[in-house]
Parts: sequence; C-alpha cells; structure tokens
Amino acid sequence: MASSWGKHLKISIWGESHSESIGVIVDGLPAGQKIDWEQVLAFMGRRRSSGAATDTARKEADIPEIQSGLLNGRTCGTPICALIRNNNTQSKDYSLFERIARPGHADYSGFLRYDGYNDIRGGGHFSGRLTAPLCFAGALAKLLLAEKGISVCAHIQQVGPIKERRFSLDELNDELAAKLNDSFFPTLEEEKSQQMQEHIAAVRAEGDSVGGVIECAVLGVPGGYGDPLFDSVESQLASLLFSIPAVKGVEFGSGFELSSMRGSQANDVFVLRDGDIMTETNHNGGILGGITTGMPLVFRCAFKPTPSIAREQRTVDFINKEEVTLNIVGRHDPCIVRRALPVVEAAAALVLLDILLSSDKRWDLQ
Amino acid sequence: MASSWGKHLKISIWGESHSESIGVIVDGLPAGQKIDWEQVLAFMGRRRSSGAATDTARKEADIPEIQSGLLNGRTCGTPICALIRNNNTQSKDYSLFERIARPGHADYSGFLRYDGYNDIRGGGHFSGRLTAPLCFAGALAKLLLAEKGISVCAHIQQVGPIKERRFSLDELNDELAAKLNDSFFPTLEEEKSQQMQEHIAAVRAEGDSVGGVIECAVLGVPGGYGDPLFDSVESQLASLLFSIPAVKGVEFGSGFELSSMRGSQANDVFVLRDGDIMTETNHNGGILGGITTGMPLVFRCAFKPTPSIAREQRTVDFINKEEVTLNIVGRHDPCIVRRALPVVEAAAALVLLDILLSSDKRWDLQ
Amino acid sequence: MASSWGKHLKISIWGESHSESIGVIVDGLPAGQKIDWEQVLAFMGRRRSSGAATDTARKEADIPEIQSGLLNGRTCGTPICALIRNNNTQSKDYSLFERIARPGHADYSGFLRYDGYNDIRGGGHFSGRLTAPLCFAGALAKLLLAEKGISVCAHIQQVGPIKERRFSLDELNDELAAKLNDSFFPTLEEEKSQQMQEHIAAVRAEGDSVGGVIECAVLGVPGGYGDPLFDSVESQLASLLFSIPAVKGVEFGSGFELSSMRGSQANDVFVLRDGDIMTETNHNGGILGGITTGMPLVFRCAFKPTPSIAREQRTVDFINKEEVTLNIVGRHDPCIVRRALPVVEAAAALVLLDILLSSDKRWDLQ
Amino acid sequence: MASSWGKHLKISIWGESHSESIGVIVDGLPAGQKIDWEQVLAFMGRRRSSGAATDTARKEADIPEIQSGLLNGRTCGTPICALIRNNNTQSKDYSLFERIARPGHADYSGFLRYDGYNDIRGGGHFSGRLTAPLCFAGALAKLLLAEKGISVCAHIQQVGPIKERRFSLDELNDELAAKLNDSFFPTLEEEKSQQMQEHIAAVRAEGDSVGGVIECAVLGVPGGYGDPLFDSVESQLASLLFSIPAVKGVEFGSGFELSSMRGSQANDVFVLRDGDIMTETNHNGGILGGITTGMPLVFRCAFKPTPSIAREQRTVDFINKEEVTLNIVGRHDPCIVRRALPVVEAAAALVLLDILLSSDKRWDLQ
Repeated sequence: MASSWGKHLKISIWGESHSESIGVIVDGLPAGQKIDWEQVLAFMGRRRSSGAATDTARKEADIPEIQSGLLNGRTCGTPICALIRNNNTQSKDYSLFERIARPGHADYSGFLRYDGYNDIRGGGHFSGRLTAPLCFAGALAKLLLAEKGISVCAHIQQVGPIKERRFSLDELNDELAAKLNDSFFPTLEEEKSQQMQEHIAAVRAEGDSVGGVIECAVLGVPGGYGDPLFDSVESQLASLLFSIPAVKGVEFGSGFELSSMRGSQANDVFVLRDGDIMTETNHNGGILGGITTGMPLVFRCAFKPTPSIAREQRTVDFINKEEVTLNIVGRHDPCIVRRALPVVEAAAALVLLDILLSSDKRWDLQ
Repeated sequence: MASSWGKHLKISIWGESHSESIGVIVDGLPAGQKIDWEQVLAFMGRRRSSGAATDTARKEADIPEIQSGLLNGRTCGTPICALIRNNNTQSKDYSLFERIARPGHADYSGFLRYDGYNDIRGGGHFSGRLTAPLCFAGALAKLLLAEKGISVCAHIQQVGPIKERRFSLDELNDELAAKLNDSFFPTLEEEKSQQMQEHIAAVRAEGDSVGGVIECAVLGVPGGYGDPLFDSVESQLASLLFSIPAVKGVEFGSGFELSSMRGSQANDVFVLRDGDIMTETNHNGGILGGITTGMPLVFRCAFKPTPSIAREQRTVDFINKEEVTLNIVGRHDPCIVRRALPVVEAAAALVLLDILLSSDKRWDLQ
Repeated sequence: MASSWGKHLKISIWGESHSESIGVIVDGLPAGQKIDWEQVLAFMGRRRSSGAATDTARKEADIPEIQSGLLNGRTCGTPICALIRNNNTQSKDYSLFERIARPGHADYSGFLRYDGYNDIRGGGHFSGRLTAPLCFAGALAKLLLAEKGISVCAHIQQVGPIKERRFSLDELNDELAAKLNDSFFPTLEEEKSQQMQEHIAAVRAEGDSVGGVIECAVLGVPGGYGDPLFDSVESQLASLLFSIPAVKGVEFGSGFELSSMRGSQANDVFVLRDGDIMTETNHNGGILGGITTGMPLVFRCAFKPTPSIAREQRTVDFINKEEVTLNIVGRHDPCIVRRALPVVEAAAALVLLDILLSSDKRWDLQ
Repeated sequence: MASSWGKHLKISIWGESHSESIGVIVDGLPAGQKIDWEQVLAFMGRRRSSGAATDTARKEADIPEIQSGLLNGRTCGTPICALIRNNNTQSKDYSLFERIARPGHADYSGFLRYDGYNDIRGGGHFSGRLTAPLCFAGALAKLLLAEKGISVCAHIQQVGPIKERRFSLDELNDELAAKLNDSFFPTLEEEKSQQMQEHIAAVRAEGDSVGGVIECAVLGVPGGYGDPLFDSVESQLASLLFSIPAVKGVEFGSGFELSSMRGSQANDVFVLRDGDIMTETNHNGGILGGITTGMPLVFRCAFKPTPSIAREQRTVDFINKEEVTLNIVGRHDPCIVRRALPVVEAAAALVLLDILLSSDKRWDLQ
C-alpha cells in the first residue's frame, strides 16, 4: 500500500534500485494542460548526480520515457505513465546484505517487513532512486501551478554545522524563486553555498557523511484552501515530505521555535497592504487552522546524514545472530541535501496541486 | 473531507464548539475486544480542564455517550459512535468575530475557506474541543494495543524557556509509561514539572500564553510494520499529529539534531542483547526505511502558544477592510501542552493500531 | 470499514436496530448551501412505515436531530451530523437468534464475521433501519442537485408477478419526476399501483413476502462527468446501490436485455434536436465509457423478498450444530420495495453529487 | 482518479490503445508468494484474440514485461509493475473521429469529459485493451487464492438468443472449475458452445455484433468475509465488474429473478451436510448481509453488443453540429464475451483477494 498517494491527484510509484525500471503513474491531471518538456527535464536534472564532490559517483541519465497520457505536448486527462530505466547498475555480490544490517539503513526492518523476500540490491525499493519518479510527477505539478501563478522554491539552510538564515518575508517573490530554482547549490547567503560544499567534500574525505536542512516556500497560494483536522495543509504536506527517505523532521513557519515563544510574539498581526489582507510576520508559515491564509507557505525538513559511510562499522548478522563488523564499499552521496532539494519542491507542488484540485470551493463557480 | 481518517481503522469526527454535540465514529475495530470503561474515562479525564492555573476556566464533563457498536463491554465489530454534549457554552455575541480576525486563529482563513458560512461561535469546528472525540478513539486504541503488549506514554519536554532532557533509551519501560500516564503534569526531571506550571501561571498573569514540546514514546512495537514511501510510519504519524490544533513541528528520534550530525554518529549500531537484535542508540526513533525496527518509537511535537491572549492586539476587519484593535475576552488555556498530552498519545495509538490492523504480514498466519 | 463511503463527499453511518441511536456524518458539502428542512423531512417520510398493509407495523418517527454542521438553515462546510433515536424497540428475548440462523438473513454470516460478538437485536447493524440515515444524506444531496437543475425520481416497476413498463425516453421530465416524488406508491401505469398493493396485502395474508424492481432516473445530468475504468458512473452507482440491504441485481439502460440484442439495435443513434446533441434511444442509460452523455441516467435494482416470513422454516442451530425448525414472530414488511424507493433515490443523488464535487473539469473555471 | 482501485491491494492501470505501452502496478501483495509464470501467461492468453471468427483480427502477443516487484519467481512485497507493449497499432487517419461520434462508443462523452484532449486513436483509454493489465493483476490474484484453496471459474451463459442453464449448486467443484478454465469457449451444455460460436460467425457475416452473459463462480470462499453496507461483497464485486467496458448489468445468485419470487422460495434453507453448515439452495449467491456464507459466490454480468459494426450508421458531427452518416472500418470483435471471460474472473479474484487481505479477522490470530 506504500506506493499510492493522493486524493484527487493520484500518483503510484514502482521500482527497485536494480529492477528493470522505476517509474510513476500520475492520474487526475486535468486534460489539455501544456507540458513543457524542457522544463520537466531541467527540473529532473537538478536531482541527478553531478559527479561533483557533493554527490554520488553513480550517474544516471534518468530520462523519463512517456508511456501514456500525453499527446502533442498536452495532458490527455488519462493516467500519465513515465518509465525510467535502471542502466547504471553495478553487478556485484549482494548476498552479504541478506544477513548483515547496514546501520541506519532499512536492511533489518525491511527483512522483518518482507520476511526476507525483498530485493535488496542497491537498497531495492528503499533506494533514493525512487525519488526520481516523484520528481517527474512534481515537475508536472509545478508546471500546472505556475499557470495559476504559484511557484515553489527552496534553499539549503543547513549542512552539518554550517547554517544560514531562514527566508525573510519581504524577500519572498518570484524573482528569488527563479534564482533559487536555477542555482546548483542554492543558498540565501552567497558565501554559505561554497562553505557548505567544501564541508561536504571534507566530510567525504574523512569517509563520513553529514545531514542538513532544506527550507521551502510556496508563493502565490490563495487563502482558503485546505481543511481543519485530518486534511490540514500541514498534515498533507508532512505526510508526503516524510515519505522522502532520510527526512526525520518537518516544521512549519517558526516551527519548533514557537515552543519557546509567547502568544504575543507568535501571533501574526493582520494588516492591510494596498488593500490586501496580509500578516506582518509569518510565524504560522501561511497556514492557520490547517487552511492557507494567502501568505507564503514556509516549512523546513531535517535530513539525516547518508547512512552509507566508508568506515568500518559494528553491526549484527541477523540470520546467524552474531555481532560482526562491516565495511560498505560503493558509490554514495556524502550529503543528500543538494539532490533532495527538487524532491522537497516536488512534494510541495504535488500536495498543493492536489489540495486545489480537491477543493469544493469551485462548486459555486460552475 | 477533513473529518475522516484511517486505512483499516476509520474515524470520523463531527462538531463545533457550540453545536448540539461533538463526537466520533470509530469503525474497523475487530469484534469481541474488551473495553474497560474506567480506563476510557480516566484517559479522557487527562484532557479535561482541571480548572487549575494551567488550564482554561471552561470545564466540561466530556462524558462520551455510546450510541452504537459496544455491547456488554465488548466491541461488536460495527461502528462505535460516541457523542459528547456541549453543555458549558456561554451565550454571548459572536457577531464581532464574523469580521475581526483574531491573530493566530483560523477566523480569516476559515472565512475564506467557507465563504463566511462556518459556525464561528467558540472557534467552531476549529476548536480544541474537537480533540475530545479523538481522545475517545485513542482510548480504545490504547486498550487494544495494551492487549498486544504495546504502551504509549509522553512527557512535557518543554514549556517556553524551560526544557528538560529527552527520553533516554535505557529508561523506556512499562513502569515509566505507567508513571507518566498517571501524572497530572508529567515530566522526566521531577523539579521541572513544578517550574513549568509556575511559568504558565506567571505567563497567564501577564495576559499572555506560551508554547511547548511534547515527547512521546511507543513501547513494545514489533519490528517490520509500516511501509517505505507514502505509508512510512513517519508519514502516518506526522499526518495525524499535524491535525492536532497548534502543532507546528514534528520530529522523529534525534530529529532536527540529525542535520548537524555525521553519519558515523547518527547510524544506530546494531547489537545483540540476550539474543535479541537491538540498536545501541535510537537516533532514528525506532523507524528505518519507514518501517519499525523493534526499538521504541520516539517523536516530539512542537506546540505554538495559545493564540487567545488577554492583551490588546492589532488586526483587521476583513469585511470592512480596515485595521482595528482587538481585545479578546473569554476562558482560554495559557498553555495547551498539558491537556494536549493525551491527544498526542491518542494520535500515536490510533496510527499504530491502524498500521497493525492494515498489515499483510498476517496473511500467512491465517 | 463498512460504514464510510465517498470520494469528496464522505458519509459515515453508525447504529444498530436497538442501539441508543442511529445516524450519519455527511462531510464535504460546500458551505452556504440552503437546506429546506420541510423537504428533508418529506423525503425521509417517504421511507417511513405507513402502517398500511404494505409496510411493517413498527412505526418510527425518524426525525433527524442535527448535531453539527448546519447553522441558520445553511451548510457550514463542516461535517453535518444527524442522529435518529431508536424509540420503538420491543424488548424481547433475542437469545434464540444467537444460535438459530434465520434463512435469508445475515445471522449466520454475521456470526462468522464478528465471532458472535455483533448486536443481533432487531438485526443489529444489518437492519434496514440503517437506510434512514442514508436517506437523510440523500435528502441533502437531492437539494444540492436541484439547485443545479438535476432531479431524481423512481417508480416501482415490478412486485412479484406484476410488472409495468419501463421509463420511455420522451416522458422523462421534471413534471413526471415531481409527480413520482409525491406519490405514495409510484408507478407509471396508474392501475398497477393498486394491483401491486393488493398483491402485497395478499402475500402478507399468506404469511409470505415478495420481491420487486425499482427503476430510477436522474434528469438534467450534464455530459462529460464520471471516468473510464474504476470510477465509471456505473461502478460508483452500483457500489452504493448494492449496499442497500436486499438489492441483488443492478442494470443500466436496457441492462440484461442488451445481451440478446444486436449492435445495430443497441447502439443509440446520435441526433440533433434544436441544436442539442442527443440520442434517439437510451439503451446505454445515459452512460458511455463510464461517462455521462447528457441523456437521463436510467437504472433498475432487483430486490429480493423480505426474508422474515410468518411461516415455519427449516434451518440450523449453528452453535449446537443441529437442524431445527423456526417460527419468526415480529413486525416485518411483506415487500420492502415501496419504502426502498427513496433509499434508491438517495443513493443515486449521493453518487451524482460526489461525482460532480470530485470533478476536475472546473479547474479551468477557477 | 479512474485508474486506481483497491483497499489493501491497490492496482493502478495506465495506457491508451495506441500509446507506447499499457500496464499496471499491483501493490499490496504479501512478500514471498510464488508466481508461476506459465500460469500467468496461460491466463492472459485466454483473453487474447485467437484470430478465429469469434474474435477481432488485431492480434497482440500481450506478453507482460516485469519492471519491478518480482525476484526469483516470488513477490518482493513491493509494487509489481508489468508493461505490455502496443505493437500492432495500425497507423491511419483518426482525425474523423475527433468530431464524429461512433454510436455506442465513448467518443462524444469522452470529448466532453476531456475537452477534446483525450487520445482517441483506437479508442484510447476506453479501449478494451486496458483489460489486459487487469488480467495480469487477476492472474496473480488467482494464484494467491489457489494457495488458499479458492478457485474462480466462469461460463458463457448466453450469446444473443442462445442461452444455457445456470450453474447448479451440486456441480460446482474444482474439477468443473479446471475444465472451464481450460476451455476455449466454455459452456456447461456441450452443444451450446458450438451453437454460440456459429451464431457469432453469422452475426459477423451480417456486419453486425451481439451481446451475451457470463456467469462466474468463486469456490472455496470461507464464510464471514466482507461487510454490511458500503463494503458489502456485492458492492465491491459490482464496482469492479462495472469497470469492465460493455458490462451493463450485474446480478448475484438468482438476481433479477428474486423480484418475482416469494420469501418462502427465495430463502435458502440452512442444513447440515457431514457436520458442515450449508444451504440447500443458493439464491443469495453465497452472500447474506454483504458477507460471505461459505457457499459458492455466483454472479452474472450482462455484456452489450460490440458497438463497432460494419454497417452504415446515422450519427452527429459534434464539432460542426450536423447529422452525418458513418461507416466504421477496422478490426473488431463481433462478440466480446469469450475474451471477456478471463477479465470477469480477474475482477472476481482481485476483489476476493482484497477482501481477504483487508480483513480484521486475523487480528486475533497474530
């Protein structure tokens, strides 16, 4: 049941790291929407390994091959299926990992879940590769949202010990969004981009890995969308964000800092700006009572360090029930954050689009 | 669509703060399960206002009246409906709030969402009262989980500036869980309980409110439950936790701290303890690849300060489109965290039970 | 999981025949819709027993008590909860039915399903009484559809051996719909109404029961709604219709007669009538490829005879595993068809409304 | 939203008649289940055109190419994706059908649904080819059910005017099921098979098409599965059966004949046979109160005649709004019933498997 998501917009993902292919069905997009293929590829390209010191050495072209649902550059209204081949799989002996649990990985929990029958090669269905089809779906969602004047952008707010400031409310506009979307390693404070990349390279050199934080904003969201309780915008966003491997924390607006604040500080004061109702601050991240306020949606995701590290680690052989030591050899990202950026944007775009498509507010407009 | 939740276990909630009643339908509980009524009432009692300085002055008995689905103290297997009357509603003039947005509240976003037709009295469907039926459902879930040896507990880890330590792995056992469940204001560090309560009283005296953090643990969860991707245990828990009003952040295990860590620190080393496979640390909060590992589930929720404060606030009249000042009079919790504790436990119990009931692992046991 | 239905529009039903109450939560109705209470009661009144020879002697007022979601005669946009008390329950000894399977009833299958823990009094959750909350929800749906010019009507096309003609395409208009909606025992051929009622009375006098067929039409449905494959209009209608107790067959348009026809007969020829695209015949019941064509939706439901009859029947004691004879005493409908008519209309209205509310066709209209 | 189905077991289908490929994701199958590839191909082969006089001249190999989820002949527990290439597409000019509605087809309703953007080549997403992936999913379901002693079989009970008897209760056993599964044109009355095939050939020679009825039985289903109300076994089966193109009627047990019967006839008398509780008759088709009784599930589906016929037909040009005549040229099945047989079995198998996998009855067995 893990592979299907959405209310009106439905996405279903398949694949393992070393299976024939991975891919996605995207169902529920309205018919006749123009899909700019260059933009789809550009967006997916942001998730690809650059081969640089920050990324894994496994490089995949990851060109989605459309199987259905698109004709003459427009959506047909029927399910869009995109298939991505697994080309660059390195044949090696994985039998060790059928019984040795790599710390921080899903080997042991997956063994319990699937009674040992899951495909463990390259991480199988748990592989970060499965975020490629998510990005394809997100690319379509971003295009449809852009038609309605909604844009999604993100920056790397933290890598290990190196942090930068959060979005300030007054800088959030489409120009910044475009700039961040075009950047290889997007940060708000220019010098931090270089520092973070150098830190990642240094960590890799030590045979280690490091975590980080991505901050994402959605601009142009009209107020009045979402629902109280179970379909709160926070619930829907968090649910999809936590399906991204390595995400272990999600917070909206000022998030955990709100715990330390007084109501008199945290309450976003409503004001009129050129006749528009806005708030002076955005501690609530554009969501009150689970519903959008018309202010930018702002949230942050915490990523744990990549569990695959080039160091000897203690662990257990869960078949023979004995403690062993393990050396992982392979190609890994020392920090997943840069490549995870478009995945976070994709998740945000998909949730927003689903919320808009599922709304009953248009009933009276018919 | 906001009021229905769950895969196998389905709960549907109704009600507004001043409507005839609030309540819940709980569907999907297996037949023949014993329901200890005393424990249900005791659990719900933890959410009730004590009338103490930490809580609102609005006191409701909140006794659930069973409409269906229980017979002779056992589940029938059919939907259980529980109704809670709204007795202590104070009739007053709410017409002001049809156009004045209380900062931090859902008045304006709700106005946009429902075109001004929502019931605004006492917060309507956005009221924290709606968590009472959630607690009823959670009480049932806790009882069923207890039958399988699974317990849920929580402590108040932070109130404003006052913090205490997180759960340590070696103290997490049923004894601690029972102790926390029985406590009025549960903390791990004994002196912190008093300090936090005093801080809340002081904040109230200043006409202000304050936020906090709840840390929750689920003990006895077997490994191998949950799913990768969209039905990750994190996704399912976060989705329900973010439906609790005022929750603005959720993190698992070491959460946001993982962003600052190296892989060599964050990877939980697998070890054998008396023949059982465990991890030495629990930075991943008992979940790897979205699937339970057999270690305790541990997560934290950040609560924002109660938006209703007894101070003059600037805001707008969104009908007449003008800036105004506002003074909120009424009965409010200066800090919602104590009463939110059982709500967090209820959410955790419901998610866990749904995951267990939805599992296909039992197919072979039939 | 049995009690929840719908995609955008969600209804959840609770209750047993002799529980405290039965009721329904209706979630997903747009805010601000006017609800004419007289029409709601009138619609529900059609389902009530008249006490006449065609109906059961158990008479219930079945006045829905609104718990939430309606204010000043309009929908709030939040869940509407309606509760119906079970007043006229006759206390008697049901212990016999904990082990004796009434033929045609769910006693034995329910025993297996719920391991003997279900509430068997009066049929419990299997009782036809559970269709009262469905009618309440349907009454709301009919009102919203009427606002869009869509009406639902039905007639009794068969009772036992007495049949009348099906709807002819040219008579289907709002006038006929109104006439059928107002009739106590609606038929198209005037004399058949009397004949059918006399037949039912005669069957009752023999201590027996009889089945029948209801034909239903939905007028004013715009073309282009619904979906191919799993969300075909037929799939969605049939799914809800088969949840009505005693329905054992559903057919659309010419239904089973299409099996005997040639394509050259069955193909509905498209024609222009005053510039509108219509079909000369309606063998497909207003649905092609799972999608509405703009022609009236027409379908029929087969009802089996009420299983409770006043005759000695052979059966088994499933606890003691022995064959026994059984005499059912009680108040039963000799033919459920008259009272099932509004239930069928309710189901049709709910499905249509859900399809309209779930449509992505309005995306471009925003 | 049309392409996703299921509760625990989820299937998502993609494709158009002339798109790159069609296919299906099957998610929710327990891990470690053996998949006999020969049986999968054999089952799918029954749906393939034989090229005989009863079938279309378009022959496709329809070999599913596994993309994920199967390893070493067993399910991994993760989504299984199967892709079927569209090889035998005949390039021709379809521009006519962008404005001419073929009677009985979804051209016009599809045009309205998708604002003219759907892929109309070869029927697009409405094509009967989409039942090939459904058969693949059904093949897996049949294998899993067979492991539990459950078998599915069907016969052609009617083709146009030629009918044969329905299943009699005493002949329903695994031997008959195997025989029917192995037959090219399965009937119960041996001579009817030949007569029906000759009738189809004759109809084709006249440039016409003809409808029919398939009767299906599921043997070995344990009692106590399914639910009352919305998840009745009838609701779940009918919902999927009506997603098969051309199905316009579904009835269970004695179906529409129950409308003419008395309760004293229709009530299936419970008896003991060798200590087992059974019913003497099976008018209810193995389902009471929406729940299985332990008797065979029996139901029938009415198929309309193939709308594509080789005769001149009147219709409209819906773009230019004028009445026109139409001659369809192409390769079509004069009667779809033979090839639809495995599709009906697939639907039955998928529903049953989903019901078993979704059951909460195993909770106590854990």
